[in-house]
Amino acid sequence: MQISNGVYPPSVQKLIKLFSKFPTIGPRTAARFVFYIMKLSKEETEEITKAISSLKETVKHCSFCLNPFEDEGDLCEICKDPRRDKTLLCVIEKETDLPPIEKTKKYPGRYFILGGTLSKFNKEEENSLNIQKLLEKAKNPEIQEIILAVNPTTEGEITTLYLERILKPLNKKTTRLGRGLPVGGELEYADEETLGSALEGRK
Amino acid sequence: MQISNGVYPPSVQKLIKLFSKFPTIGPRTAARFVFYIMKLSKEETEEITKAISSLKETVKHCSFCLNPFEDEGDLCEICKDPRRDKTLLCVIEKETDLPPIEKTKKYPGRYFILGGTLSKFNKEEENSLNIQKLLEKAKNPEIQEIILAVNPTTEGEITTLYLERILKPLNKKTTRLGRGLPVGGELEYADEETLGSALEGRK
Amino acid sequence: MQISNGVYPPSVQKLIKLFSKFPTIGPRTAARFVFYIMKLSKEETEEITKAISSLKETVKHCSFCLNPFEDEGDLCEICKDPRRDKTLLCVIEKETDLPPIEKTKKYPGRYFILGGTLSKFNKEEENSLNIQKLLEKAKNPEIQEIILAVNPTTEGEITTLYLERILKPLNKKTTRLGRGLPVGGELEYADEETLGSALEGRK
Amino acid sequence: MQISNGVYPPSVQKLIKLFSKFPTIGPRTAARFVFYIMKLSKEETEEITKAISSLKETVKHCSFCLNPFEDEGDLCEICKDPRRDKTLLCVIEKETDLPPIEKTKKYPGRYFILGGTLSKFNKEEENSLNIQKLLEKAKNPEIQEIILAVNPTTEGEITTLYLERILKPLNKKTTRLGRGLPVGGELEYADEETLGSALEGRK
Repeated sequence: MQISNGVYPPSVQKLIKLFSKFPTIGPRTAARFVFYIMKLSKEETEEITKAISSLKETVKHCSFCLNPFEDEGDLCEICKDPRRDKTLLCVIEKETDLPPIEKTKKYPGRYFILGGTLSKFNKEEENSLNIQKLLEKAKNPEIQEIILAVNPTTEGEITTLYLERILKPLNKKTTRLGRGLPVGGELEYADEETLGSALEGRK
Repeated sequence: MQISNGVYPPSVQKLIKLFSKFPTIGPRTAARFVFYIMKLSKEETEEITKAISSLKETVKHCSFCLNPFEDEGDLCEICKDPRRDKTLLCVIEKETDLPPIEKTKKYPGRYFILGGTLSKFNKEEENSLNIQKLLEKAKNPEIQEIILAVNPTTEGEITTLYLERILKPLNKKTTRLGRGLPVGGELEYADEETLGSALEGRK
Repeated sequence: MQISNGVYPPSVQKLIKLFSKFPTIGPRTAARFVFYIMKLSKEETEEITKAISSLKETVKHCSFCLNPFEDEGDLCEICKDPRRDKTLLCVIEKETDLPPIEKTKKYPGRYFILGGTLSKFNKEEENSLNIQKLLEKAKNPEIQEIILAVNPTTEGEITTLYLERILKPLNKKTTRLGRGLPVGGELEYADEETLGSALEGRK
Repeated sequence: MQISNGVYPPSVQKLIKLFSKFPTIGPRTAARFVFYIMKLSKEETEEITKAISSLKETVKHCSFCLNPFEDEGDLCEICKDPRRDKTLLCVIEKETDLPPIEKTKKYPGRYFILGGTLSKFNKEEENSLNIQKLLEKAKNPEIQEIILAVNPTTEGEITTLYLERILKPLNKKTTRLGRGLPVGGELEYADEETLGSALEGRK
């Protein structure tokens, strides 16, 4: 019996390959995406391709925080807002870390998007982050406190140490987000560091 | 302090909304997709939009099994192959169920893609599946056995019962995939039905 | 064919039933415990029954913190230690919350074991906790701060609110463990409350 | 500040150590068991220790299948039952695999408990299973089919191959439980072997 080769047609395989590179997506889910798209109408499919092309054409990066935006000018809505506290600069890993912080309604300053984390100290990785731009912004005399709001993961920690080191000469106040028990957390399962911080940070 | 409204720009929000409709994808992962695309070059982005458009333009549906294909003619590679056993018809839920069966190298017949499952017996759901086309193919005197290879999930079961009912008048042999212990399975955790089948199907 | 009734012998079923009441244990694991014990030698089995009986006979509850201990006297090792800071009282849910806090090496005071949490405000539940004893200890003029180190879960929160309410008349300082991002946590997935606290508790 | 040593009293630590050896149990759950027992009354605690002792004193092992039982005589309820099909022998790994098979109501024969699995072919492991007794029972001319109902896990597979090898000289029919899709299973995620068996075992 002859088995069919490359069971999916070339166009299908090509798109599965491209979707497989999307964050968190493997070949199985990529295939599901492709067959989902095949069931859409011509108009629905064009809506998607237009939205993707338009991303590149319409969206700019804020000249201060590097966050994407669409309005006139060089600054995004947050950086443009005169009511934001210009003494504070909150450094985050990526664009998707900004909305959670904004939603707390407890951060009045401006942001800076680093563009990633370091897995080790080496020139190549360091050059892939927006370090130079960060130093430029941080030097500004208006800035009094730089909050390093990088995730407390292993790579986040390496990145934070690196940032503290390169920001040191600027003699500004650098802070980290407080550690502690998250909502729903349990003492019994908290690691020593988190629980120690929770004790010290009690109020 | 003024909070920015709609923290992501409109083009970003639009594409997040479209990606959120993809199977298994929610707003968080959709946002990650968008920022992933924003980092791609113009060429890489065009590769994606071209591959999506090309799907609609190049891919056809096999007139026999409804599986997508790209060659000349009306039949896909499998249905076109004279060496396939024309007495067997294997009904599957969706396109992604075909490769696993082909890979076993134990199915020599042809396929039919149902296009979904039923969650209950009602005219609306029944009309959304390719039932009429299935009946047409199944009536063919060549066909001697119809394998209902629908997943043994709750909805798969409802669908299989429905198919058995509507295929009954055709007086053909209908079979279901054998139930039993999967590789790595454990007796202790198997449900009665599966274990009963495993006992009866012993060899 | 006759099916055997109560497939396990009565003694086995009895012990499965008793083990099934252990925290986190269901009938399947309880059965595994029983067959594990059946494989032990007579000496190993006696070691277990003796250890269980001895628990009741040897272990006392500290007259101050209610923590179990074995030495002479009425006070456990911690409460007995003159170097412990007598101005601090750390209220915890259960015995197993004590070692994690001790391990941080950041708590120099004494403890009090509440004995559980409340799922709602009602006299019956309130009476099952060691509330009266807590009030007695807390009234002591030596005590200046009462740390409510109850898990930040839904029931923990109800319990903490209740404790704050009944301790209010004492006019002592009551604190809660700091909330924040745990080690390994991610901003993107933190809830507003936790992230807000992490921002406020930055250093 | 002085940290208390061995935070739990010796009796507590001893019983935690013993419970930690129970199948699936680690120190954290073992500690929860101990504090659960400490809350029980004297009578409830005695009920547990009596049930454990009684296990050793009352329960016997069936001289045929090695399953534990309590009645008079040498044979358990199943082996004693004249209506059981004496031509069938179902070899299982452990006692807890018996009830699931009985519950299917599809096995009319008798059992044999192997007492474990092999992780590799070596004399030491082989000697720890009830192989010799199995060979004795299997030789009986009444026995026509030996079902090897060992879990299709990696170790189960090694064990089944070993059993097939040592039973070969007896020239009896040896069977394995049927493989196939379990209830709730999905084609897309089934491995080739399972799916191939499901196809071959269709009905």
